[in-house]
Amino acid sequence: MDTKILHVDAGAGYDIVIEPDVLDAAGERIKEALPKAKRLFLVTDSNVSPLYGPRLVASLEKLSFEVHTHVIPAGETSKSAAELVRLWEWMTAHGITRTDAVVALGGGVVGDLAGFAASTVLRGVDTVQVPTTLLSQVDSSVGGKTAIDLPAGKNLAGAFCQPKLVLMDPNTLSTLPDAEFMSGMAEVIKYGCIWDRDFFDFLAARPTRAALMADIAHILRVCCDIKRLVVSQDERDTGLRMILNFGHTLGHAYELAGKYETWTHGQAVAAGMVTAARLGETLAVTEAGAAERIMAVLTPLGLPTHIPCDFACMEKAVGVDKKSAGDSVTLILLEKIGVVRPLTLPKAEVLDTLRRMTEA
Amino acid sequence: MDTKILHVDAGAGYDIVIEPDVLDAAGERIKEALPKAKRLFLVTDSNVSPLYGPRLVASLEKLSFEVHTHVIPAGETSKSAAELVRLWEWMTAHGITRTDAVVALGGGVVGDLAGFAASTVLRGVDTVQVPTTLLSQVDSSVGGKTAIDLPAGKNLAGAFCQPKLVLMDPNTLSTLPDAEFMSGMAEVIKYGCIWDRDFFDFLAARPTRAALMADIAHILRVCCDIKRLVVSQDERDTGLRMILNFGHTLGHAYELAGKYETWTHGQAVAAGMVTAARLGETLAVTEAGAAERIMAVLTPLGLPTHIPCDFACMEKAVGVDKKSAGDSVTLILLEKIGVVRPLTLPKAEVLDTLRRMTEA
Repeated sequence: MDTKILHVDAGAGYDIVIEPDVLDAAGERIKEALPKAKRLFLVTDSNVSPLYGPRLVASLEKLSFEVHTHVIPAGETSKSAAELVRLWEWMTAHGITRTDAVVALGGGVVGDLAGFAASTVLRGVDTVQVPTTLLSQVDSSVGGKTAIDLPAGKNLAGAFCQPKLVLMDPNTLSTLPDAEFMSGMAEVIKYGCIWDRDFFDFLAARPTRAALMADIAHILRVCCDIKRLVVSQDERDTGLRMILNFGHTLGHAYELAGKYETWTHGQAVAAGMVTAARLGETLAVTEAGAAERIMAVLTPLGLPTHIPCDFACMEKAVGVDKKSAGDSVTLILLEKIGVVRPLTLPKAEVLDTLRRMTEA
Repeated sequence: MDTKILHVDAGAGYDIVIEPDVLDAAGERIKEALPKAKRLFLVTDSNVSPLYGPRLVASLEKLSFEVHTHVIPAGETSKSAAELVRLWEWMTAHGITRTDAVVALGGGVVGDLAGFAASTVLRGVDTVQVPTTLLSQVDSSVGGKTAIDLPAGKNLAGAFCQPKLVLMDPNTLSTLPDAEFMSGMAEVIKYGCIWDRDFFDFLAARPTRAALMADIAHILRVCCDIKRLVVSQDERDTGLRMILNFGHTLGHAYELAGKYETWTHGQAVAAGMVTAARLGETLAVTEAGAAERIMAVLTPLGLPTHIPCDFACMEKAVGVDKKSAGDSVTLILLEKIGVVRPLTLPKAEVLDTLRRMTEA
């Protein structure tokens, strides 16, 4: 069996298991990781539940777990305070105890919401993440950040909460719509950009979903490996972890400009990486040609390399508008493909460079 | 000035400052503890706000803090998910940042609610606790447990979150109603019972509120000193901290039997300590006469030494009813006044003893 296990040295430490059809072995894996758990509180969404819910539940019940299931409506709007409170009330109405655990089956919304609920109900019960989307497999399920959205913005209330186990079944990606798969690929390409030139070239040589899927277990392993190294050195997000934001600061501006409707997170990050590379090249920090190279990987996958955003929007995105505090700003740039370089610069210099870029 | 400072070795470590009129020096104290904070989000309740809000705000503004204030309705019903969400939305609507801090001015409800909101907004900002009731000064403001109530029970969602500073002004106790002062005294007496015979005798020699208030700074210091020693050895509540539950397991049963209306927390704990002492005497674990001695301290303060509770209620309270898991149960008993003794016993033995006690 093609099983890859990565150990993450954060929190009490935990394993990421990447294995085709691990859904059907979830019972054994969870029993091993959480020998005291008797009841499992499974949280999933209305898209994922019919696809993978029954298989996961069958695997858990085979190991004599008492399984309670709660299905949230699919979509980002479920990452809300109202859904969080519903989860708390559901768990406590069923008498959850400190040795029980929460299992999150689905994408980032399910993982973030269920993880936050688990980390706060009874002041914290164990969590098992079973991410079923590419984005959640390479990003949100590793690292321990959980959150909900508030009217004022995304991810504004949450907790740092390392799971006790992450189970990734690459076969669940087969049911993912193309747009969502490609959105996840933007994050995958990011890991190549900031950390691993060989991996970047590996991806460049696989310009279709079919070609990528043929090596998907390897791709998941490399991404999770990079993320776990970064996270274990910076669990509380106070330093190194910022390199994971390459392309994201600008990406958030693009998402916001499109009111989170025009562009997916991945599309915004794709264009954000290109702009960040261009900015680095203009500042003479990034090797010339890096932006072109990134575009060459994004384009065949249908990911955008440019998203319209006026000067005011750019200013705000990189934190050099009048409302941002301080005289300097830290940008996550590349030295070259595979080598990230966080750089703190005077705001005036960044503003000048942005002006030159947008006027060019 | 009669200032006592205790350092608590939990979380990043923090000071408890016990000082008459420290409310008027809060600005300086907070500036010193949180040099980066610019904005303070003050949470208080409708009882405390008119009494101490203006003085605290004046002290903070004198040090150039930008202060935002949110007043919750006084009372346990505010320890709700709805109020928590309102706090999150209020903080983020005002653009709270990670270097800002939340200041909780009030009793346990304010401290628990604001502490939980602070520990989760932006995945955690700093908290300063300014407890104004005896119960919150000796109990909830130290230890880092925060929570809200849910329909299924009390304190069911929350976080472990050590404050960055605790400011106690003993003079705020002057406005506390007698019943609330005495409710706090039950917890004070508990510390004597479990940890310090001399302190127990000190309290026994002060049978009136006036006599206790004459030495209140000393009383606060002793209680906080015991709690910080226990908490620093068991931050996450997995061991030693259980000794703080002396009288509480039975107390919770009494509270529940009266639907949280008939008896205050302190009244229930008072009677719970007497019953726990009696149980210990019957089991020949506790020195004979201990229950009588505890009653002699409680009675002059108007605290109950007995609360009616039938056999089924007692069974449930000590966790030996059919619904409780396992064959044994851990009771927090005394060896004698000043010496606590957690004891794990077979359920059958505890049941027999309870039967003998209730039949006697």
